Amino acid sequence: MEGGGVGEVDHLAGERATAQFDVEQMKVAWAGSRHAVDVSDRMARLVASDPVFRKDNRTMLPRKELFKDTLRKAAHAWKRIVELRLTEEEANLLRLFVDQPGYVDLHWGMFVPAIKGQGTEEQQKKWLPLAYKFQIIGCYAQTELGHGSNVQGLETTATFDPNTDEFVIHSPTLTSSKWWPGGLGKASTHAVVYARLITEGKDYGIHGFIVQLRSLEDHSPLPGVTLGDIGGKFGSGAYNSMDNGVLRFDHVRIPRDQMLMRLSQVTKEGKYVHSDVPKQLLYGTMVYVRQTIVADASKALSRATCIAVRYSAIRKQFGPQTGGPETQVLNYKTQQSRLFPLLASAYAFRFVGEWLKWLYTDVTHKLEAKDFSTLQEAHACTAGLKAVTTSVTADGIEECRKLCGGHGYLNSSGLPELFATYVPACTYEGDNVVLLLQVARFLMKTVSQLASGKQPVGTTAYMGNIQYLMQCKCGVNTAEDWLNPAAIREVFEARALRMAVNCAQNINKAPSQEEGFYELSPDLLEVAVAHIQLIIVTKFIEKLEQDIPGEGVKEQLRVLCNVYALYLVHKHLGDFLATGCMTPRQGALANEQLGKLYAQVRPNAVALVDAFNYTDHYLGSVLGRYDGNVYPALYEEAWKDPLNDSVVPDGYHEHIRPLLKQELKLSRL
Amino acid sequence: MEGGGVGEVDHLAGERATAQFDVEQMKVAWAGSRHAVDVSDRMARLVASDPVFRKDNRTMLPRKELFKDTLRKAAHAWKRIVELRLTEEEANLLRLFVDQPGYVDLHWGMFVPAIKGQGTEEQQKKWLPLAYKFQIIGCYAQTELGHGSNVQGLETTATFDPNTDEFVIHSPTLTSSKWWPGGLGKASTHAVVYARLITEGKDYGIHGFIVQLRSLEDHSPLPGVTLGDIGGKFGSGAYNSMDNGVLRFDHVRIPRDQMLMRLSQVTKEGKYVHSDVPKQLLYGTMVYVRQTIVADASKALSRATCIAVRYSAIRKQFGPQTGGPETQVLNYKTQQSRLFPLLASAYAFRFVGEWLKWLYTDVTHKLEAKDFSTLQEAHACTAGLKAVTTSVTADGIEECRKLCGGHGYLNSSGLPELFATYVPACTYEGDNVVLLLQVARFLMKTVSQLASGKQPVGTTAYMGNIQYLMQCKCGVNTAEDWLNPAAIREVFEARALRMAVNCAQNINKAPSQEEGFYELSPDLLEVAVAHIQLIIVTKFIEKLEQDIPGEGVKEQLRVLCNVYALYLVHKHLGDFLATGCMTPRQGALANEQLGKLYAQVRPNAVALVDAFNYTDHYLGSVLGRYDGNVYPALYEEAWKDPLNDSVVPDGYHEHIRPLLKQELKLSRL
Ligand SMILES: Cc1cc2nc3c(=O)[nH]c(=O)nc-3n(C[C@H](O)[C@H](O)[C@H](O)COP(=O)(O)OP(=O)(O)OC[C@H]3O[C@@H](n4cnc5c(N)ncnc54)[C@H](O)[C@@H]3O)c2cc1C
Ligand SMILES: Cc1cc2nc3c(=O)[nH]c(=O)nc-3n(C[C@H](O)[C@H](O)[C@H](O)COP(=O)(O)OP(=O)(O)OC[C@H]3O[C@@H](n4cnc5c(N)ncnc54)[C@H](O)[C@@H]3O)c2cc1C
Repeated sequence: MEGGGVGEVDHLAGERATAQFDVEQMKVAWAGSRHAVDVSDRMARLVASDPVFRKDNRTMLPRKELFKDTLRKAAHAWKRIVELRLTEEEANLLRLFVDQPGYVDLHWGMFVPAIKGQGTEEQQKKWLPLAYKFQIIGCYAQTELGHGSNVQGLETTATFDPNTDEFVIHSPTLTSSKWWPGGLGKASTHAVVYARLITEGKDYGIHGFIVQLRSLEDHSPLPGVTLGDIGGKFGSGAYNSMDNGVLRFDHVRIPRDQMLMRLSQVTKEGKYVHSDVPKQLLYGTMVYVRQTIVADASKALSRATCIAVRYSAIRKQFGPQTGGPETQVLNYKTQQSRLFPLLASAYAFRFVGEWLKWLYTDVTHKLEAKDFSTLQEAHACTAGLKAVTTSVTADGIEECRKLCGGHGYLNSSGLPELFATYVPACTYEGDNVVLLLQVARFLMKTVSQLASGKQPVGTTAYMGNIQYLMQCKCGVNTAEDWLNPAAIREVFEARALRMAVNCAQNINKAPSQEEGFYELSPDLLEVAVAHIQLIIVTKFIEKLEQDIPGEGVKEQLRVLCNVYALYLVHKHLGDFLATGCMTPRQGALANEQLGKLYAQVRPNAVALVDAFNYTDHYLGSVLGRYDGNVYPALYEEAWKDPLNDSVVPDGYHEHIRPLLKQELKLSRL
Repeated sequence: MEGGGVGEVDHLAGERATAQFDVEQMKVAWAGSRHAVDVSDRMARLVASDPVFRKDNRTMLPRKELFKDTLRKAAHAWKRIVELRLTEEEANLLRLFVDQPGYVDLHWGMFVPAIKGQGTEEQQKKWLPLAYKFQIIGCYAQTELGHGSNVQGLETTATFDPNTDEFVIHSPTLTSSKWWPGGLGKASTHAVVYARLITEGKDYGIHGFIVQLRSLEDHSPLPGVTLGDIGGKFGSGAYNSMDNGVLRFDHVRIPRDQMLMRLSQVTKEGKYVHSDVPKQLLYGTMVYVRQTIVADASKALSRATCIAVRYSAIRKQFGPQTGGPETQVLNYKTQQSRLFPLLASAYAFRFVGEWLKWLYTDVTHKLEAKDFSTLQEAHACTAGLKAVTTSVTADGIEECRKLCGGHGYLNSSGLPELFATYVPACTYEGDNVVLLLQVARFLMKTVSQLASGKQPVGTTAYMGNIQYLMQCKCGVNTAEDWLNPAAIREVFEARALRMAVNCAQNINKAPSQEEGFYELSPDLLEVAVAHIQLIIVTKFIEKLEQDIPGEGVKEQLRVLCNVYALYLVHKHLGDFLATGCMTPRQGALANEQLGKLYAQVRPNAVALVDAFNYTDHYLGSVLGRYDGNVYPALYEEAWKDPLNDSVVPDGYHEHIRPLLKQELKLSRL
């Protein structure tokens, strides 16, 4: 999908001609449906063609202008959504393609879901319409200066005062300052604030409260409320468009009914009572939010690989020793071995994300039926997938940048900003290490229950096959044998289970389970990763068992699935060998097969990234241009830098000329 | 070494009290000598106490101001160097601590060495004094828009015109534009320009020329010279202080004697003649420059680990399940397993860098004596060490940032800028992958020559022990056995050699060596890495065989050496197992021992980073403050953001109020 530019020639036409599959149908496979392709296409073009949404100058804007630009875009996007009566699906896509972090993300992504998940029906009736119409702007204020991961350690207090039927929200210490919430610093009028509920002298732990922060008349902070932005963040442009904020309360009073009371309430008299709604419901929201983060991972990684693949097809460096034209760097096996596994991962994450969406609806239905049997498993699986996909994506974007050589370091490549905007996904919504430890804890519990005959469910079902998996031998004899999905699945299952059982046994040797878990936690991270990788591989394989229309589409996806799996085998060979899941020779065969698969990806590489269907506007990269006309674009971009306003730079007369003329005024010492 | 701040209390005093070694003596071990500590200390304080060198606002400066700030600092630094009659050693340290990329880096680091290395004595006599006194500012203009790694592909031409005794420098294509040279865009008056030498109608390939670019009177570009900055780069602040430039020549004439003629000359008549100086001399310069990059790697990684270790000792998150005070995150084994190997790597890189410095003088002496026997080996070793240390450091800085949780994402943590400034080290002075392939090529040659009885030298000497290393068995029986340096060295040697031999055999199976090398290049990267890791481990072990004064100093370094080696064993377990260098059980014992080593590092961690002796100014991180008084500092920093100039943000009236008031002007559609 092109988007205007320097030339008319398609420098990548040759690459597109070698594709062995139907690209239009691959777009459908990637997006999920023909409908999804069409809507996404329409919204992407709508954004790309609207001058308000231009973002090519973003990394050059000073912070205040950048923030103002975010406000402008948010208002304009809303205007377009209303004017065009866009559906929710369309509106979400429009916001996606605007591609600039801002308060709306938290408003829709955290504030609204928190009220939906934790508010009573009455509260929802009152607050949601206000939020839906943007009569209020809301954010999600949980993290404090002193506590993020450990939510139970939050220090903000909400003390009930029965005399006035109010809660008094207060920040008793410096470290209790709310710190990080997006949209809080400048834009939000309201927040869901998490605080320790204290009533009748007793601390009932962390609860959510809807708190108005700013006047709806003039936007000034309400009495007792101190608000500000927490300062510059990683990169230029990037997440600096967001007003992550600091918030302090000095005995701010809110009506009792602004406590989110779906799960528990405080009565007029100050009694703390639980409702009959099971608290497991809260997990539903977490599964939902993390599911969207997995979907975002595939988007970010696919953008990065799209840029790196296209540029690697244009970039030529060195010729064959025999002379002749220079080699496209995409032809180098090292370039392929770094890039194609990331391309395969983008597809793998896309499909596991699609499945997670299904899982979320499944969990929701079960919750409604008060069936909590798969909740823990679903929660662990989502947490783990969030951790693994975001970590791989963050590293992968930077690898794609390096794959572009020097030019990847320029802002005009789009990769520095993509990276800087993306990396906090490894930290927010649960630090990845903390999440993986949760997964590991769940796996250890599952293993320990195997003995008592409890059947593991969902993504842990394979563990029920313990007798077989603990002793099975990989049957691979030739490199081609590695193309058998059953063989792949089995080694991944055996590896994950054996690592888990190993760890469980070592924990049992420790003086206490807790101590054992603590001492072995680095190994437990690896156990969790092995389990999650198995899930991703399995979901990719299962996807291929479905009907996928389009000439050559399924074949290409099968190649990518094999690349993904065998790349992991090679990368984690130590795991597979140490647990006796395969022999060194079988490992070498996997690696040999991997090399062959890269050769199969090569002629399809550009078409495989075209299938993401990204506009040049959304990609925001001169290196990733659809038409491959990279060099004139790089050259033109350069001259836009403010430093090029004058040939002789500002500062020459003060700081260069005196130096050259040996006329620096020296102090006499 | 503190540097002023919010409070007087040392929040890390408790950590410092648990150190089991003499920190002052560790500073000596780190810096190389008592003298080195003292000079460095003096220069660091000089910079930290000078308001011109403040850098805490750097990430907030718009590009033009940032660049002007660089010019100011460069001139001021020079003024101080002259005023105080600083020695070269002192001046280098002063520039290091100013810590802002700028034209001076290229002037001293590339322009001057190029003239020294490639200029005749006469040329040196003419140009070096000008450069030494800053009567000219020089840069190093090699890379072009179209070619970086492949220097032989450069397109700029230098055509000799015997009629005028001049070279005509010309940029025949867009892609021949010089692109990237630091200091070129705005500051430099001169450049060493690399161009294809053409005389008598024949192309003699790439040669260096001294070209004046700007008037020494008013700094305007000379006729035929187009100059500009190539635009914004990764991060805010960071490398944007540098004017990486673009340069085009339109038939620019320079006198014949501005060709760098040490190795070859063009006569008045236009004859191309070689001098009797061997061209191997050029390698000397490369060894020199890359050696400094390895030294820089240890500096950057030590800064990052210093910040992460100190903050991890302050940051508390979660308590023991039994209640009681919260746990310092540095106590979590996962935190240790991510952080301590990086700390150990910083020390390992420091010592291998020290050794490289020795290697450089050794090579220089041998070159002077026309002894080229170790040159290739030294060159491969330096290239490989550059690649491995910069890659690990780049990833390591980002890992340190993640280890700081959310707060690491703030510019005030110092880590985003450190990362953004550092990462291009993986690309400049040789793309790391390209360099590792060179190393691999050398190793394949060395292996193939073993059969013919040629004795490998220097860091490849171990390969001569092939009979033994191909069949030796690791004798480790207990976790403690892994503390034996001989055992460690042997498995690293066996692994590196077996991987190399394996690859060599596979290459031999290919239709041609070239094809084999191409197909196996991803594996060859791993061969090169294994060899380089062996070198780093070996040099650390050899360091410990020397006398190292100070109570407990050597013991601590031994712990770090073991952490470094066993961490690599764990990380690359697949290599060691696949090559039969150890058994899975021995791998598990290594991992067990690693856990014990982390426990030994823990009480010494803060003292080990104190030994780097960095000022708060140089660290530039509120999280890494010497006194650990993190929270008030974070809080104070936040308010300095320009976005906090007003409580109600710029843009409220245009873009927020109309939204909230439902007064967006909708277009009628
Ligand atoms: C860009 C961005 C946007 C954000 N937006 C919001 C928002 O809108 N609303 C909001 O409320 N918050 C927000 N946050 C805060 C975010 O949720 C927290 O930063 C996150 O939860 C991590 O917590 P932390 O910063 O306290 O990290 P810490 O927990 O302090 O992590 C520091 C280190 O300690 C380790 N660690 C911590 N606990 C353990 C443990 N038990 N075992 C082992 N290791 C451990 C971690 O792995 C990490 O290495 C945002 C953060 C960022 C960066
Ligand atoms: C901050 C910065 C400062 C710089 N300063 C200077 C300076 O002062 N003066 C100057 O002259 N230059 C400078 N450079 C340029 C720098 O030297 C080049 O960027 C570098 O040599 C890499 O070359 P490239 O950009 O052409 O990368 P490319 O070679 O185009 O790399 C693109 C990809 O191709 C791969 N590749 C290339 N060749 C092969 C091969 N044979 N086999 C396998 N893979 C291959 C690479 O691994 C990489 O993944 C600077 C660059 C940066 C980023």
